[in-house]
Amino acid sequence: MTASSRQILALNAFDAAAPGALPPATQALVERRRRTFGPTSVLFYDEPLHVVAADDVWIETADGRRYLDLYNNVPSVGHSNSRVAAAIAAQAARFNTHTRYLYEITHDYAERLLATFPAELDRIVFTCTGSESNDLALRIAGAATGARGVIVTEAAYHGNTAAVTEVSPSSRPSAALAPHVRAVPAPGGEGDVGGSFAAAVEEAIARLTREGYGVAALLVDTIFSSDGVFADPAGFLAPAVDAVRAAGGLFIADEVQPGFGRTGAAMWGFQRHGVTPDIATMGKPMGNGFPVAGVVAGADLMARFAAGVGYFNTFGGNPVAAAAGLAVLDEIADRGLVANAADVGGHMKSRLEALRRNRPVIHEVRGSGLYLGVTLADADGAPDPAAVTRAINGLRDRGVLIGAAGGRGEALKIRPPLTLAREHADMLVGALEAVLDAG
Amino acid sequence: MTASSRQILALNAFDAAAPGALPPATQALVERRRRTFGPTSVLFYDEPLHVVAADDVWIETADGRRYLDLYNNVPSVGHSNSRVAAAIAAQAARFNTHTRYLYEITHDYAERLLATFPAELDRIVFTCTGSESNDLALRIAGAATGARGVIVTEAAYHGNTAAVTEVSPSSRPSAALAPHVRAVPAPGGEGDVGGSFAAAVEEAIARLTREGYGVAALLVDTIFSSDGVFADPAGFLAPAVDAVRAAGGLFIADEVQPGFGRTGAAMWGFQRHGVTPDIATMGKPMGNGFPVAGVVAGADLMARFAAGVGYFNTFGGNPVAAAAGLAVLDEIADRGLVANAADVGGHMKSRLEALRRNRPVIHEVRGSGLYLGVTLADADGAPDPAAVTRAINGLRDRGVLIGAAGGRGEALKIRPPLTLAREHADMLVGALEAVLDAG
Repeated sequence: MTASSRQILALNAFDAAAPGALPPATQALVERRRRTFGPTSVLFYDEPLHVVAADDVWIETADGRRYLDLYNNVPSVGHSNSRVAAAIAAQAARFNTHTRYLYEITHDYAERLLATFPAELDRIVFTCTGSESNDLALRIAGAATGARGVIVTEAAYHGNTAAVTEVSPSSRPSAALAPHVRAVPAPGGEGDVGGSFAAAVEEAIARLTREGYGVAALLVDTIFSSDGVFADPAGFLAPAVDAVRAAGGLFIADEVQPGFGRTGAAMWGFQRHGVTPDIATMGKPMGNGFPVAGVVAGADLMARFAAGVGYFNTFGGNPVAAAAGLAVLDEIADRGLVANAADVGGHMKSRLEALRRNRPVIHEVRGSGLYLGVTLADADGAPDPAAVTRAINGLRDRGVLIGAAGGRGEALKIRPPLTLAREHADMLVGALEAVLDAG
Repeated sequence: MTASSRQILALNAFDAAAPGALPPATQALVERRRRTFGPTSVLFYDEPLHVVAADDVWIETADGRRYLDLYNNVPSVGHSNSRVAAAIAAQAARFNTHTRYLYEITHDYAERLLATFPAELDRIVFTCTGSESNDLALRIAGAATGARGVIVTEAAYHGNTAAVTEVSPSSRPSAALAPHVRAVPAPGGEGDVGGSFAAAVEEAIARLTREGYGVAALLVDTIFSSDGVFADPAGFLAPAVDAVRAAGGLFIADEVQPGFGRTGAAMWGFQRHGVTPDIATMGKPMGNGFPVAGVVAGADLMARFAAGVGYFNTFGGNPVAAAAGLAVLDEIADRGLVANAADVGGHMKSRLEALRRNRPVIHEVRGSGLYLGVTLADADGAPDPAAVTRAINGLRDRGVLIGAAGGRGEALKIRPPLTLAREHADMLVGALEAVLDAG
């Protein structure tokens, strides 16, 4: 999840100390969870969702209700997708171990996936999670540059390992960043977005250089999910990438969120910006829920890393992971899901824009394809996280699931499966209108 | 894989520069692999295994041969286990997203799994890999103790993240350990094994204390897999654990290898030693190939960690992972696989001991249940990694798959699915006898 900031989550989290009047079966499950998961677990919503099944863009709960899912990007080719489920089932019954034996499907998948990247990115390492991918990418960048400094955005989230948490300001809101990590504001606002972003990155470069860390990498989620979703104008990344390379650093594109067609413009978020990263990482939607992820880079970078240390990932790219991943690629291609993300996302965005013109609480509508961020503001135009929380819970009452994003939780996060249809987008807009009007 | 040391792997790795006369289909797959996986990938064997399917303890290759698998611990309830495959298939078609909604099967699994641990270990965090589990365990220990120092064994392997690679000497044979990491010899040899191990740990404690790092944890794989498999005498861990606790540190039991009944003595390796860890980590066999792993600890430790930082694992413990994990627990219980590991492993060990008495090249037979290490030595009694490599390839020629372990690759590593039968153990012993006699 992007919104792993405890601050942000708190806006949309269930409070076990004040469970209210939950149905008995749900209350029992909350209690079982408290006794086994305990302090590290977080549930969504004032009244947690007690799920029993899901299909395509719909989630069904124990009380017999159906919810339109505009939150979940993991089941990006639809919940319980039958093609993916069948591929997993067939392969799990045939063979599933690691990649130290030759096995056809793993290599079929590696080739199919690499073919979606620019030619420079010609080698892949499979991992199991986006966190593992970003952890590895940072080490590849360190080995290639001999530098330690990493530049990220102020509310970035890149995963949960020790090393990746260090470069995820949103996971540690109360802690100062390590000195080799510099955070810059996400690219947004008016004027020369790309120029301002590059200027901030250049300032970070100067500081890292001055302090002796050097610049290993600029690491960004190319749609800036946890920062609040920043997509426009397309191309804004290029000057910052140039600056980092001029300083000897690499550009790592974290495609865990925007990848696999979500932006509607291309398979990968960096393609919208006309840049090619040195390293790209991916995860979440890759296996539609099967834990599979990866890192792509050029052969030279991979070789420099492998010369210094052994790396092996037991489950990474195993035959069932490859089967799931291939089925996802097939679904995206055969059902035209990138184009669908552009069409339905564009439709939803213009309808939300229209709504904004009549509802001053809507401050900005941002994003691309099926990843939109809608900021809410109070009467003085200041960010209004409380209004966001009310809207999220109000939408849930009306059968629509969305999330929160942004450093202060000031944005509605809309990030449905890519199979969403225009009629579903219309349902969201109608429900949001009703929720906002209800206050 | 335990033997992720590049040194050890080199003993049993395919050399792409000298592929020899591979069958054309296999050669083509090697070439496809070289062009996509590149420098980070390692294949087993002088002539890599080109797998087409696997069932229970058998792996079938493209040339129509069948191999007895005495290497793979991931498919621990048998390759392509039909109960696990059916559980995965059913759940993947029903619902599979993260754990921020309430969903029954995840909590069924959490309860079933926690019930296999001592009562003190009453909370679980699901992750996807053993690496993620050990990464998280180190952070939990750091939060609880305020210390940084970690004590591991000299050829330990605990996973592949940046932080875990730091405490995995076998992954970085040519690099010095970070100053907060102290490596001690694995507990073995003659005499007071537990006392000697504790003395080495106490020396490491003194050094870490003197240098200001303090002691966060003693982290050991409770069967010392990559060190070469050390299991006896049961109980040898206790004095070292006492010493670490006296110094304010925690004991982390890495159960990725010995867990889920492999030692034949109990579900968890630490139970053989009569100690209860502060934190236990698990992975590999947990989902029989489905990427699922976890960390268990007491609620107080979890709370102290969660107070400082957000942690969420998108795929960790998702409904399909839980379904796979439950099916594995069912198989272990219903088929009596812990007892089977004791019976078949005990039988294999005594037959190997008998062989040792007639073959001086066999230096030592170590291990417990279905995890055995057999060291080979030259005429002077010195460790003989070359003989190990010859034996591994010779066994493969005779249709039996095993691996290598130990800091110098001096041990045969025998670690089959827990469904192994006595007749399979006899096949190994017969084949090993023939291989050793052939020189």
